[in-house]
Amino acid sequence: MSVSTTVLDVPSGAPARVPTPAATDPRLDRLALNQKTTDGWGLEDLVAGCVDAGIPAVGLWREPVQAYGVERAAALVRDAGLRVSSLCRGGFLTATDPAAAATALADNRRAIDEAATLGAPCLVMVVGGLPEGSRDLPGARRQVEEALAALAPYAAERGVQLALEPLHPLFCADRAVLSTLGQALDLAERFAPETVGVVVDAYHVWWDPELEAQVARAAGRIASYQVCDFVLPLADDPLLSRGMMGDGYVDFTALTRAVAAAGYDGDIEVEIFDRALWAADPRDVVDTVKRRYVELVVDPV
Amino acid sequence: MSVSTTVLDVPSGAPARVPTPAATDPRLDRLALNQKTTDGWGLEDLVAGCVDAGIPAVGLWREPVQAYGVERAAALVRDAGLRVSSLCRGGFLTATDPAAAATALADNRRAIDEAATLGAPCLVMVVGGLPEGSRDLPGARRQVEEALAALAPYAAERGVQLALEPLHPLFCADRAVLSTLGQALDLAERFAPETVGVVVDAYHVWWDPELEAQVARAAGRIASYQVCDFVLPLADDPLLSRGMMGDGYVDFTALTRAVAAAGYDGDIEVEIFDRALWAADPRDVVDTVKRRYVELVVDPV
Repeated sequence: MSVSTTVLDVPSGAPARVPTPAATDPRLDRLALNQKTTDGWGLEDLVAGCVDAGIPAVGLWREPVQAYGVERAAALVRDAGLRVSSLCRGGFLTATDPAAAATALADNRRAIDEAATLGAPCLVMVVGGLPEGSRDLPGARRQVEEALAALAPYAAERGVQLALEPLHPLFCADRAVLSTLGQALDLAERFAPETVGVVVDAYHVWWDPELEAQVARAAGRIASYQVCDFVLPLADDPLLSRGMMGDGYVDFTALTRAVAAAGYDGDIEVEIFDRALWAADPRDVVDTVKRRYVELVVDPV
Repeated sequence: MSVSTTVLDVPSGAPARVPTPAATDPRLDRLALNQKTTDGWGLEDLVAGCVDAGIPAVGLWREPVQAYGVERAAALVRDAGLRVSSLCRGGFLTATDPAAAATALADNRRAIDEAATLGAPCLVMVVGGLPEGSRDLPGARRQVEEALAALAPYAAERGVQLALEPLHPLFCADRAVLSTLGQALDLAERFAPETVGVVVDAYHVWWDPELEAQVARAAGRIASYQVCDFVLPLADDPLLSRGMMGDGYVDFTALTRAVAAAGYDGDIEVEIFDRALWAADPRDVVDTVKRRYVELVVDPV
């Protein structure tokens, strides 16, 4: 597949770069670039690239932040005048072995600390799939609930919102037994909204017949709104099947309006995992992200 | 991948075949073999194979039945003393072009006639994905509802139940905008239960956090209970990712009990699409189907 012709609006290495919106373009006020979208960039490149492109916020991942140093990363982002929109990710709470479960809780507490240090408003939680060898889905779901109850006070003390991310049911077995927004809200509503919220990730929820009703129900609990498109055919690794907005089946206009109607006015984070994008020049990826975001995602009303 | 060691309990071509339950084994009373599971068999082989194996019912597909002749197929199955558990499949009702929509309705009426001729209690409906170029999922869902209203009287007159099959959300874009059992029931409940029912297909619904509640709600509307396992990794063609019961993540004991508690006592149809199985000797596939069905699927209580 040719990246330059099928995915990006701006052919990589084209001699004349298409003009981008000015750094102060108010249409970009809520745009956040998740760092996985431009995976080829290190943290410093990412920050410089966002400043350069007039993108005011970044979604960060724990591993590269830890490698750079959490305090140092916080200062880098802050000094550049950027916001952190979210930290990915905590979770993986379904281990049944007591030692493994304790290790997972300890790791999540570290993740909460990191989010607090970075000034991230929320820690995205991918709750984990079925334990090895288990087919007890209700049991795994109960375990997530218990682990969340154990973590919530720690998060509340540090002012970090745990953001439960329902994943597409495709990932129920191996990544997240949390499969719908309704299920995430059933769980979140046991806690204060500022402590446990939900992620509305277009890729994971676009198919849900209850989507509009559940987004409305999520009013006051939407911690993060993430966008990327559901594209077919699936990539050989389904995790890397998240496409550029406009290349797939998601009606972003409808979803953005539903999220806005639920009162969410926070950052809108573009999080795309796609090998073709990763092979492209990150600056070209950013140009396409901005253009598609303005055309398709941000509320045109 | 070696078929014989990873999928089948009985290595293909093994000199001594493991003894199979007797043809009158009462544990097999409700077992139906969907003909796609042993795709290498023509209709006559399928019928002979089921008689040979003590399997009392077959799930048929329209294309091979049409090729053989519908009346002739009906006689073949009947004369062998077998039941038809279901006919696959009607549906694909989401075309927006009026001519294409009319063609789809006409084809579904033919499918209803074929089901009646075969004595199939139900016609499985895979409703269709998003129309070409459309992102209007609510619109496609409304269209299914309208087409179903147009078809229901025709089905009722012929005593064929339309069996709405929610497909795994993985297939929402390209195969079925009907994604959950709850959504299928919302639609089915507008019609008499004997005219519009639902399919509980383990592969498609196992992940659903509302599964138990929705199966209970489906009491009196379960037209078909289909089994196969959700396995990972996905096949390169996700349609062919349905695995042998026991090879994946589905808790069949829990699902069979829920379906029984909802009053369903009809056939339990094993429908597996898997290239490795198709490459194997169908008699070995049938042996494994029977063994796994008895061990894992049929209610042990």
